[in-house]
Amino acid sequence: MLKRYLLAPGPTPVPPEVLLSMAMPIIHHRAPDFLPILDSAKKGLQWLFQTKNDVLILSSTGTGGMVGAVNNFFNPGEKVLVLNGGKFGERWTKICQAYGLKVDELMVEWGYAVNPADVEAALKKDPDIKAVFVQATETSTGVYHDIERLGKVIKKYENTLFIVDAISALAAQDLRTDEWGVDVMIGGSQKGLMLPPGLAFVSVSEKAWKNNGLSKMPRFYFNFKKERENLAKNQTNFTSAVTLIIGLNEAIRMLQKEGLENVFKRHATLAHATREAAKAMGLGIYSKESPSNSVTAIEAPQGIDGQQIYKMLREKYGITGAGGQDKAKGKIFRLAHLGYADIFDVITGIAALEMVLKELGYALKLGTGVAKAQEILMQ
Amino acid sequence: MLKRYLLAPGPTPVPPEVLLSMAMPIIHHRAPDFLPILDSAKKGLQWLFQTKNDVLILSSTGTGGMVGAVNNFFNPGEKVLVLNGGKFGERWTKICQAYGLKVDELMVEWGYAVNPADVEAALKKDPDIKAVFVQATETSTGVYHDIERLGKVIKKYENTLFIVDAISALAAQDLRTDEWGVDVMIGGSQKGLMLPPGLAFVSVSEKAWKNNGLSKMPRFYFNFKKERENLAKNQTNFTSAVTLIIGLNEAIRMLQKEGLENVFKRHATLAHATREAAKAMGLGIYSKESPSNSVTAIEAPQGIDGQQIYKMLREKYGITGAGGQDKAKGKIFRLAHLGYADIFDVITGIAALEMVLKELGYALKLGTGVAKAQEILMQ
Repeated sequence: MLKRYLLAPGPTPVPPEVLLSMAMPIIHHRAPDFLPILDSAKKGLQWLFQTKNDVLILSSTGTGGMVGAVNNFFNPGEKVLVLNGGKFGERWTKICQAYGLKVDELMVEWGYAVNPADVEAALKKDPDIKAVFVQATETSTGVYHDIERLGKVIKKYENTLFIVDAISALAAQDLRTDEWGVDVMIGGSQKGLMLPPGLAFVSVSEKAWKNNGLSKMPRFYFNFKKERENLAKNQTNFTSAVTLIIGLNEAIRMLQKEGLENVFKRHATLAHATREAAKAMGLGIYSKESPSNSVTAIEAPQGIDGQQIYKMLREKYGITGAGGQDKAKGKIFRLAHLGYADIFDVITGIAALEMVLKELGYALKLGTGVAKAQEILMQ
Repeated sequence: MLKRYLLAPGPTPVPPEVLLSMAMPIIHHRAPDFLPILDSAKKGLQWLFQTKNDVLILSSTGTGGMVGAVNNFFNPGEKVLVLNGGKFGERWTKICQAYGLKVDELMVEWGYAVNPADVEAALKKDPDIKAVFVQATETSTGVYHDIERLGKVIKKYENTLFIVDAISALAAQDLRTDEWGVDVMIGGSQKGLMLPPGLAFVSVSEKAWKNNGLSKMPRFYFNFKKERENLAKNQTNFTSAVTLIIGLNEAIRMLQKEGLENVFKRHATLAHATREAAKAMGLGIYSKESPSNSVTAIEAPQGIDGQQIYKMLREKYGITGAGGQDKAKGKIFRLAHLGYADIFDVITGIAALEMVLKELGYALKLGTGVAKAQEILMQ
């Protein structure tokens, strides 16, 4: 028997309560008994997004929400700024380019957070920039970009939308959509929301809706205006993913019971314990600044391949973390503490990591990392 | 207590075996233990689609598959022919127009099937037509369009793709993708496949892949070429909807145990019994020719509103069928026999219908329709 532990930055484990709720019989998406379910999901998402804006519910992965954010507010040839500090920053660029936008990239070294002053300089230099795209948490590097400070800068530019991929940050970081002036924020089901993959969520500000009226790009599946009209009637434009939405209500009920502030605190504490445990083991943290609450990117010790650590964790101990991507491949491995995660998920991950590293010849006293994690998690 | 019965043409009931399989712990979509699951789903879909072509698996509703079929094979300004015999035929037109295609519509009267000779005439007249779009089953009218005969006509035109929305027909009708020359066929999870909504399936012929190479339309989420490359590695381009794909394997296992021919026969028999029962009750069938195996559209008796029948079935007896759409609204109501449906679903639907009609003042001897259904279903 090899018990399985999922410590990846998405998909993340789904609580039994949510799994069971999704095993309820199918309800027709246009029938009256589904309307209160969608109404509840809608309000729950507004609570989680900390917004009064509509939060659209799309049947797609999170990337579908990102595509919709590019496809619904612009016209080909318009200039946008992408803050690119990793694999998912790169994805913003690719999506924008696929739809004919002129992309300026503000390149951020992997492992570092974007400097809001650089964004300010770029916007000052070019007031034609129609939007700034960023990740809240860049999953590939484990870095959190400071959405509050970025919002303060971008808010000054009337014609610039602030578009945030919060797919892996939602529920793990305090993200105040309205207070911080985020125009479009995207979430996904399979991360902090503790659901299976299959739903994307997108909040849209009034400022962004104005742009929507001007955008002539071809679109049909991710048509935000139609989704908004349907949402007002507690429906979705096409067949609602009814099981996932029922699960969403259960997941939000669990988060609400815990309290939003406690949810953020839990993620912050688990992340802190993971980082300190790794350091106690003599390992470096790949995120040189602003490490995220969702996932910790840890540097492989010299002479040991990060991918081998990832593989041995999986194959020998049943623990699925994540390796590194692209230029970080081999150099790092990642452990998530995202969604349905608690103290003993961190302890499990760190204990297994110690055993793997020891087996790979790394000089280490067993229990060092675990003890450090315990110390922090006891507080 | 009001027990609920779902007799709508999608979403349809999900078998307990499938619901349970989807309650299994989440597996990471890039981890080795997911690869055989996707491999199995891939092969199962080829079996169901009766094709050797790739069948792509998309995280979206069926409409996402339709959008992909328009977005991946053409260039703006190209001319296509839509066979429009109902609400979903109309959807093809809207999608094609949204992406800048020049649409010729062959209008088919609601309740009737398209005449292949009319398609032949249209293609002869205009050899520039790049594709013919049709529904296998037009859900709004309950009509099945003869895909085999249409395929024979379209096959003669080398530059014309044959694109079939089989979302509500898959598993209910014998659809021989390869043998009948269907280039692109679209299925959805929440119909005959007995799954919750959230997956679309698209088979693509070599002829269609050639067009894909020429198509310059902007696309990112529904990028079939990338999906094909990922499918070859038993992955999907973005996060796989892992729970639904696990459920898909279970559903296909159930269908394979029954045998494809028996699955079609079961649907044909249930549809036949539903129609004959309605006729025995003195009701007209809205599909004047080629009624589908998936859903039966029944005409409301004179002086009775079809929507009222739909509502009373739901509210008084817990049975969710469907009303009429657009020009058929009020004139008809629909009962599906699709997916996880057997003899007693038909009996239940017909028995409830008798009681509702009697209450609405329709002259009827209770049990007339049920007896007719029993007679047929006993054979």
